[in-house]
Amino acid sequence: MPPTEHPIHSSEDLQQIVDDVYARAARDLGKGKVATYIPALARVPIERFGMAVATNDGYFASAGDAATPFAIQSVSKVFVLMLAMRLRGASLWNRVGREPSGNPFNSLVQLEYEKGIPRNPLINAGAHIATDCVTAGHADPKQTILDEMRRLAGNDAIDFDPEVAASERATGHRNAAIANFLKANGNLESAVDDMLDVYFHQCSIAMTCEDLARAAGFLANRGVDPRTGVRIATERKARRINALMATCGLYDAVGSFAFHVGIPAKSGVGGGMMAVVPGDMAIAVWSPGLDRQGNSYVGVRALEIFVNAIGRSVF
Amino acid sequence: MPPTEHPIHSSEDLQQIVDDVYARAARDLGKGKVATYIPALARVPIERFGMAVATNDGYFASAGDAATPFAIQSVSKVFVLMLAMRLRGASLWNRVGREPSGNPFNSLVQLEYEKGIPRNPLINAGAHIATDCVTAGHADPKQTILDEMRRLAGNDAIDFDPEVAASERATGHRNAAIANFLKANGNLESAVDDMLDVYFHQCSIAMTCEDLARAAGFLANRGVDPRTGVRIATERKARRINALMATCGLYDAVGSFAFHVGIPAKSGVGGGMMAVVPGDMAIAVWSPGLDRQGNSYVGVRALEIFVNAIGRSVF
Amino acid sequence: MPPTEHPIHSSEDLQQIVDDVYARAARDLGKGKVATYIPALARVPIERFGMAVATNDGYFASAGDAATPFAIQSVSKVFVLMLAMRLRGASLWNRVGREPSGNPFNSLVQLEYEKGIPRNPLINAGAHIATDCVTAGHADPKQTILDEMRRLAGNDAIDFDPEVAASERATGHRNAAIANFLKANGNLESAVDDMLDVYFHQCSIAMTCEDLARAAGFLANRGVDPRTGVRIATERKARRINALMATCGLYDAVGSFAFHVGIPAKSGVGGGMMAVVPGDMAIAVWSPGLDRQGNSYVGVRALEIFVNAIGRSVF
Amino acid sequence: MPPTEHPIHSSEDLQQIVDDVYARAARDLGKGKVATYIPALARVPIERFGMAVATNDGYFASAGDAATPFAIQSVSKVFVLMLAMRLRGASLWNRVGREPSGNPFNSLVQLEYEKGIPRNPLINAGAHIATDCVTAGHADPKQTILDEMRRLAGNDAIDFDPEVAASERATGHRNAAIANFLKANGNLESAVDDMLDVYFHQCSIAMTCEDLARAAGFLANRGVDPRTGVRIATERKARRINALMATCGLYDAVGSFAFHVGIPAKSGVGGGMMAVVPGDMAIAVWSPGLDRQGNSYVGVRALEIFVNAIGRSVF
Repeated sequence: MPPTEHPIHSSEDLQQIVDDVYARAARDLGKGKVATYIPALARVPIERFGMAVATNDGYFASAGDAATPFAIQSVSKVFVLMLAMRLRGASLWNRVGREPSGNPFNSLVQLEYEKGIPRNPLINAGAHIATDCVTAGHADPKQTILDEMRRLAGNDAIDFDPEVAASERATGHRNAAIANFLKANGNLESAVDDMLDVYFHQCSIAMTCEDLARAAGFLANRGVDPRTGVRIATERKARRINALMATCGLYDAVGSFAFHVGIPAKSGVGGGMMAVVPGDMAIAVWSPGLDRQGNSYVGVRALEIFVNAIGRSVF
Repeated sequence: MPPTEHPIHSSEDLQQIVDDVYARAARDLGKGKVATYIPALARVPIERFGMAVATNDGYFASAGDAATPFAIQSVSKVFVLMLAMRLRGASLWNRVGREPSGNPFNSLVQLEYEKGIPRNPLINAGAHIATDCVTAGHADPKQTILDEMRRLAGNDAIDFDPEVAASERATGHRNAAIANFLKANGNLESAVDDMLDVYFHQCSIAMTCEDLARAAGFLANRGVDPRTGVRIATERKARRINALMATCGLYDAVGSFAFHVGIPAKSGVGGGMMAVVPGDMAIAVWSPGLDRQGNSYVGVRALEIFVNAIGRSVF
Repeated sequence: MPPTEHPIHSSEDLQQIVDDVYARAARDLGKGKVATYIPALARVPIERFGMAVATNDGYFASAGDAATPFAIQSVSKVFVLMLAMRLRGASLWNRVGREPSGNPFNSLVQLEYEKGIPRNPLINAGAHIATDCVTAGHADPKQTILDEMRRLAGNDAIDFDPEVAASERATGHRNAAIANFLKANGNLESAVDDMLDVYFHQCSIAMTCEDLARAAGFLANRGVDPRTGVRIATERKARRINALMATCGLYDAVGSFAFHVGIPAKSGVGGGMMAVVPGDMAIAVWSPGLDRQGNSYVGVRALEIFVNAIGRSVF
Repeated sequence: MPPTEHPIHSSEDLQQIVDDVYARAARDLGKGKVATYIPALARVPIERFGMAVATNDGYFASAGDAATPFAIQSVSKVFVLMLAMRLRGASLWNRVGREPSGNPFNSLVQLEYEKGIPRNPLINAGAHIATDCVTAGHADPKQTILDEMRRLAGNDAIDFDPEVAASERATGHRNAAIANFLKANGNLESAVDDMLDVYFHQCSIAMTCEDLARAAGFLANRGVDPRTGVRIATERKARRINALMATCGLYDAVGSFAFHVGIPAKSGVGGGMMAVVPGDMAIAVWSPGLDRQGNSYVGVRALEIFVNAIGRSVF
């Protein structure tokens, strides 16, 4: 391995890098557009910007609005996927693929041509399959998901945002279209409304960058939560979730992100992003202005600058 | 970085791993189907299997038919892309995208919906763009490509296989369809037949696994040929080519390969595969039996076993 | 106009032709497959076959199971379209196209590529638009539709089949997917469930061939019900509905039907078909065995033989 | 049959109607856009407008530029289809469908999804199949086509326009893409270039409205040329060609044209249109300004006004 540009030997080292990256990425604040399809997202100021990094070695640093909760939205897909993999093992992949979609994130076209088998679990249709597994496999699936997020982040205050969940449901006709199509193709076990209720709630989970950086620790650390030492997933599963993020995590910008940044990441429409330097650290950024592909404009910039700073693209 | 399972401190260490991987992967020999669309490919025995690995540290090992030349076919796309990036820089990306295609490798559907802009340079349509740049940018583009391959592999005996080139041309109606469609959309500078002539020749280049493992060295070594110390591409470009291979290199199996293997790779219809462990080593495998996605059945297995053995998935 | 082969000067003349056509078409009874997605359809014997013809001159003839009610299913789309045209006039065509779909009848692909504007009002998605107009435009839309069917057929016993309506709703996930997609694209005024309730009821309307042949009279007679003399639609609208049936009425078999038969027609999954010889007569056939395009196997045959017998393809 | 509004009992009657229709349609002259992809089309003044009508009874009338030759372009597809049907009979339909395309006229998308079987013989891909049959089935296919056009129009001066043919070839990359794709799918007997040479020539045939109205006579007259009494096609074949024009003749405007006009027609990019009132008459119009669907703006208007005037929509 070539030496990193910025060897990190303490939280102070890390904080210095994070502060520098934050300052440079903040120059783009105001770019992009805040999602407006629900009021709770629309009223978030575009200038919000938080960042947090947690290394496998136990170093931690954060900057800006890193302690402000936001709706994690599609970032939740990664964690619910992990729960579904735990419940179903390899059989999960009979119901959902592992290939990039090559289409915008909620395309029904792909779903129809491929007979109701979503391309991967990180687009909406595929996430419905994972949520369906959790819905069918747990007595109180919403509580199961919430408990897992609290455990991973080490923060029992994490909760659903009921306003977001209600708004998602009220405007969620496209998700209802997808779920009904899956049901029509025999690829949904739960009742459509039951699965959607869980799905809209998982999207509404409110977390901070600090929470998210900690919650992603097991993905950076080969399956073991570096904070608690608890194994959350096998090493193989952790690597595989990272591989899925790298090839499918950013909708129609996955190739461009790999090209420019080069680490596994997952974004949400609220402007949150969770990224992993496998073997090293987890990173969370949040800024609500979205680029044309639906990813946080400043978040992508921050990750690009950070990865260049530490010299740790996986490629 | 976590310690690798098999630390490699000599060519002997490496040879032992390669021998072991070879033996295990060889159990699947006979699986898959040899491409039959041209006689020169159809008559290659399915039992052929070669493997070679070259580390950045200068260690080298090979096994089986590693010294037998085969038509590298689509593996050539990576090298011609590098030449096109050298000629055109960032402006290349106005003519071709960087996203996974989400469709079989020679789809006209995507091309039509996206107005003649191929999704990425590692599918046929996108490779036509790269070849077009080289065709327009060099006086003798076929010789330019050949010279580059000879230099990278350190083997002046590398040459086109004229029978393969002629057969590709005679049966290449689908490539002619794509190239004419690009021309109709104003995204081809050269005459259709000129570009196709170069393209069919680059596909016909005959190399061995040993050649290929050496030729890929600069991608494993941040742009510098580890054998000669010559810089072939900037570090950034080398990383970016690796990112493109990781997200677009294996047609409709890119996600599955990332999931199971987890390193950048490019395959060809002749059964050759070139893979890179960034920062560490380059690997070439060849076995002509293809799986349903068009990748070498035994080649994919060998890479999976090898990556597990050295513990070096990028994820 | 060339002389018809069988000039019809009385109901007896017509009955003779109908009997002959019926006997010849009945040889194919048993071919095709009865729809099985709901029990009420699945249990209809495939040997059922009815036919009725009503001319503008007042002649009438029928054969076989012409007095047995069946669920008219998609045939209802024609009548609800007429009601929507009456309510909205030309503005209806801002929300739905008039072109053949070129895809199977409930395709979401077309809908997604064309931003939620269905191709025509005789595929499911387009029929949702027409039903939405009626749902939004009448206080009791189900009763409005039922009243119109009773008036047109001159039969107050016509009613919904509650078992069919309930089964359609219970299994109607694909229609729910379409309706939610329309809503997500801002092309549905009513609540999704309200529109679907009307839609599933209109599909469940139980009528006989005799009813249907009479109900279609205004389409054969330039907009005036030949039985009552009441104008149901303008001549222009009647012609236009016929044109829509001719180009869009038989899903993916519209071209083949025009080629082989050559008159406007609309089919339903229950095996019913309604056809019009413009200026002359209306025809209804029913036989539940469906061909691969979802049209009544024997029904299509009967119409082909009948049109040949009277020499009155529109082409 | 209801009485027509304008009973036509002489060429004078007909001329009066044609003059009136011409005057009203001419108000829209200047609307639309002349095709510019080849110089020979681009330089035709948008104000050109001709019209001719030939009835089965032998009446004839024309107006405006009815004696000026223009390139018939896609109108030729109808005649070459007739020649292919004559050569191949029903087996032709194994290679090309009879359904509307539901996509713009030269779509490769449909072709790819349907494995190289064009949707119908009146879109470019399907016309290639018909031309391929004629190319394979006649010693001098270009002369065969020319001879047929001369015979049908009764005008030996009809000829190819060599400038148009050459320009079509030079710019015909999209047609070359389609033809190569058909060849790649095993659905082309001739060499690609041979078929394309015939195709580009048939498109270049220069005829007048007077020629075209006469040439279409057999389609209006159940297969018999009303001018000569010679049977050109069986009644069934003539009806079937009309049915294909009605469902597939106007690209993505076939439904709208049926809705507004309601007779079988075929258009060409040169602004020519040929239409048939089955059993009654053939009509040719020409005006080079094209609407957004690629049909003559004034031509469509003239046909709509004419059909309303004679009260003879087929619906």
